[in-house]
Amino acid sequence: MAIYSELITLNRQSQQPVYEQIAKGFVVLIRDGVIKPGARLPSVRGLAKEIKVHPRTVVAAYQELVAQDWINSKPRSGMVVAENLPQLKPRSFKAAAAPAKSITPSGGETRPAFKYVINDGFPDYRLSPLMPLLKQYRAAFFEGRLERDSMYSDVAGSWDLRTELASYYGETRGMTLKADQILITRGAQMAIYLAAAALIRPGDKVVVGEPNYPMANMTFEQLGAELIRVPVDEDGLDIERLERICRRSKPRLLYIIPHHHHPTTVTLSAVRRMRLLEIVTQYGLHVIEDDYDYEYHYAHRPILPLASGDTNGLVWYVGSITKNLMASMRVGCLIAPPDIIRKTAGHKRLLDIRGDLLLEAALAALFRDGTIQRHIRKGVKLYQERRDLFCRLMEDRLGGAVQFRVPDGGMAIWATFGPKHDLRNVSAGAAALGLGMNDGRFYDTSSVAYNSLRMGFASLDERQMSAVTQILQKIIRSR
Amino acid sequence: MAIYSELITLNRQSQQPVYEQIAKGFVVLIRDGVIKPGARLPSVRGLAKEIKVHPRTVVAAYQELVAQDWINSKPRSGMVVAENLPQLKPRSFKAAAAPAKSITPSGGETRPAFKYVINDGFPDYRLSPLMPLLKQYRAAFFEGRLERDSMYSDVAGSWDLRTELASYYGETRGMTLKADQILITRGAQMAIYLAAAALIRPGDKVVVGEPNYPMANMTFEQLGAELIRVPVDEDGLDIERLERICRRSKPRLLYIIPHHHHPTTVTLSAVRRMRLLEIVTQYGLHVIEDDYDYEYHYAHRPILPLASGDTNGLVWYVGSITKNLMASMRVGCLIAPPDIIRKTAGHKRLLDIRGDLLLEAALAALFRDGTIQRHIRKGVKLYQERRDLFCRLMEDRLGGAVQFRVPDGGMAIWATFGPKHDLRNVSAGAAALGLGMNDGRFYDTSSVAYNSLRMGFASLDERQMSAVTQILQKIIRSR
Repeated sequence: MAIYSELITLNRQSQQPVYEQIAKGFVVLIRDGVIKPGARLPSVRGLAKEIKVHPRTVVAAYQELVAQDWINSKPRSGMVVAENLPQLKPRSFKAAAAPAKSITPSGGETRPAFKYVINDGFPDYRLSPLMPLLKQYRAAFFEGRLERDSMYSDVAGSWDLRTELASYYGETRGMTLKADQILITRGAQMAIYLAAAALIRPGDKVVVGEPNYPMANMTFEQLGAELIRVPVDEDGLDIERLERICRRSKPRLLYIIPHHHHPTTVTLSAVRRMRLLEIVTQYGLHVIEDDYDYEYHYAHRPILPLASGDTNGLVWYVGSITKNLMASMRVGCLIAPPDIIRKTAGHKRLLDIRGDLLLEAALAALFRDGTIQRHIRKGVKLYQERRDLFCRLMEDRLGGAVQFRVPDGGMAIWATFGPKHDLRNVSAGAAALGLGMNDGRFYDTSSVAYNSLRMGFASLDERQMSAVTQILQKIIRSR
Repeated sequence: MAIYSELITLNRQSQQPVYEQIAKGFVVLIRDGVIKPGARLPSVRGLAKEIKVHPRTVVAAYQELVAQDWINSKPRSGMVVAENLPQLKPRSFKAAAAPAKSITPSGGETRPAFKYVINDGFPDYRLSPLMPLLKQYRAAFFEGRLERDSMYSDVAGSWDLRTELASYYGETRGMTLKADQILITRGAQMAIYLAAAALIRPGDKVVVGEPNYPMANMTFEQLGAELIRVPVDEDGLDIERLERICRRSKPRLLYIIPHHHHPTTVTLSAVRRMRLLEIVTQYGLHVIEDDYDYEYHYAHRPILPLASGDTNGLVWYVGSITKNLMASMRVGCLIAPPDIIRKTAGHKRLLDIRGDLLLEAALAALFRDGTIQRHIRKGVKLYQERRDLFCRLMEDRLGGAVQFRVPDGGMAIWATFGPKHDLRNVSAGAAALGLGMNDGRFYDTSSVAYNSLRMGFASLDERQMSAVTQILQKIIRSR
């Protein structure tokens, strides 16, 4: 009989539940042929005793393996490895032949061969509440709610989810909302697109930060806007400069990220926020407030969104639920007056007839039972630790070559490399060592080359951070 | 002890697998309090014998109940009903307060109180391969593929899925494709939007059928196009009329649905298809070929798509995978030359940074192992039966009042109500009897009122069809 205490290693400090670690351990053993098809697994009590976990944990692990078809329960034999194993599906060779791509941080076309990747600031997919979500899917299917949820759909998104978000945003952001002020979108980007399309006519002037979230700039330019760039310093966007522009040029729209400006991560100071609200009212300036990672603040309570104040419907708010889940689940929202929501919903329908109703209904349920709120609280705690560790490693290993401020929140630092270290070379060197990272060009504008990039720490665990900073140290030293 | 053979009724003719019926039966019994928390369930063999199924079927049912937390496996007691039952989540009262909506067939804003709904032609969600899909999700999560799948993403969609689709479209449609000619979108609508946006400049002329899929017309108009409407008769679009228009007005684009034209369901005749291809080449006319339900043909082999011929890259093809799954899972594709795919992918990114990578990876796996192909074959067989039954019921019960042709394929009939029966009245009368249906205005244009609607039969089972046609009969007779 196998000695499972040696074959299955458990890490009780890991974020991954122990039962998942056990199940995963068995998957590897079965896949590698260590345990053969037809073989009996140890009894629940026997294994529990051997690897020192509660029998319930073993039961949960076995249930997971059954659900994935790795093992079957046989009368009088207990659990046995399936005779017909699930088909193993390694990435096909065809797929490996995908054309090599350059990395762009937000869209993430990446070369499929990196061992590590520094992304733009994504949550750690390993912590995503996928299992509770799948449970909701199954339940909806079995209880016949699927029919109701797909028949009674609203192009603006699941009414349940909009109702939950209204109350969640009320509790966390001081926003007094009703569901009809919320449009569910495929991630924050679609909310930015639809809001901008509702406001911008070709030739309109749009004020943006310099530097700014490049995807937003591209969106406004695609819609025919002329960009007016206003510097962003340590306190956020230069609001006095904005006022002079309002006086002179009558811009149609300001796009701003008051919390953790993208890419530089700075927070708009309280003084500037107050002044901005005055300017908005005085000039009737429309604002798209992108608040993509409000939840993730470590230094202090978050400042309330501009949209939580009384702004006569001029400030439209963009939120991201993706940032609370995983990068590949695109759910975001636009918050605006009800007539604007109806209008943008009409436009949304032309690009995307209806949302993922199953996902939206499941998320509503997970907000209602508190799963997502708990998940966010755990994430905030962990990401703060990761921020601290990552900043320490960066300072220790790359201190002379790279400059950055420790951000108050969010999932990334904004790192500026010294003139001796051109990011294009650094990025190429990193790629050769198995590390995928942005080469900085994504953030450059026609007038400014920043030699900087966002380095997402939230999705890197300790081991990965160490590996990543070691690779960078090697590259920096070799110059 | 409960007499399960009476409590759990099985329908062996049903499309729902027997194990699901058993599981569902237990959910109802537990939910209704017939079986209490803590109660022991019968042994696998005992129950199997009593309700006359294979013990494996009972095991599968119990596994499903365990996965949904309804029951637990207890050492020495077997299966017992969970002490902490899954929270029951009926539609909340808040949600019920959603504003009443008028029905639109394709977007489906519907009033949340109907017992039956006639939709525009959707697949039956009850048959959707949701369970195999969820299995793929779990496997991706456990095997750590999630990281790879979300890091190595391409804005044009999962390379694996594009590769699978290329070979599937090759086998089923005679299209010789590579993955880089395919853009994955959120349903066919996004493919239409992106293709149109790449082609249309304000003022361009676009030829469409009369009547036509209204969402396509709206999309072209939103992009600033001027519509030229060409009649659609029993053989499809009037191609000679199209040629005269090409000669005279130099249209930029033709939008056509050769298979099962939407809304009227007619197929473009072979003669006209040949002539159309000549015109395309002669005038350099761009074509968006919307082939949303190619798979579902009953009368004969489907005609090959226009895009399967050599058209110098002028014919761009729109496919729907949603139609093979369920209405709320939005996956479609655009097929065009690689440079167009790159360009439209850049635009797509502004509306939707990346797709649902998890779903796309899972679908790729289900194409690879043949699950989706089997699912489609079953669907075709069943939907043909449903078409026949529905047409018979319509003829028997509404023969004098409604005209329609039996369609060669697809999921809906195009039903024209007689002048005595204004669809707005019929629809209002139906709503009062618990039946949600379109009032026909969705298909009307400024010049023509059709007094017609699409009636989706694919998602209605026998009982529902009977109920729906009875309600309509009642309304028609009462006039």
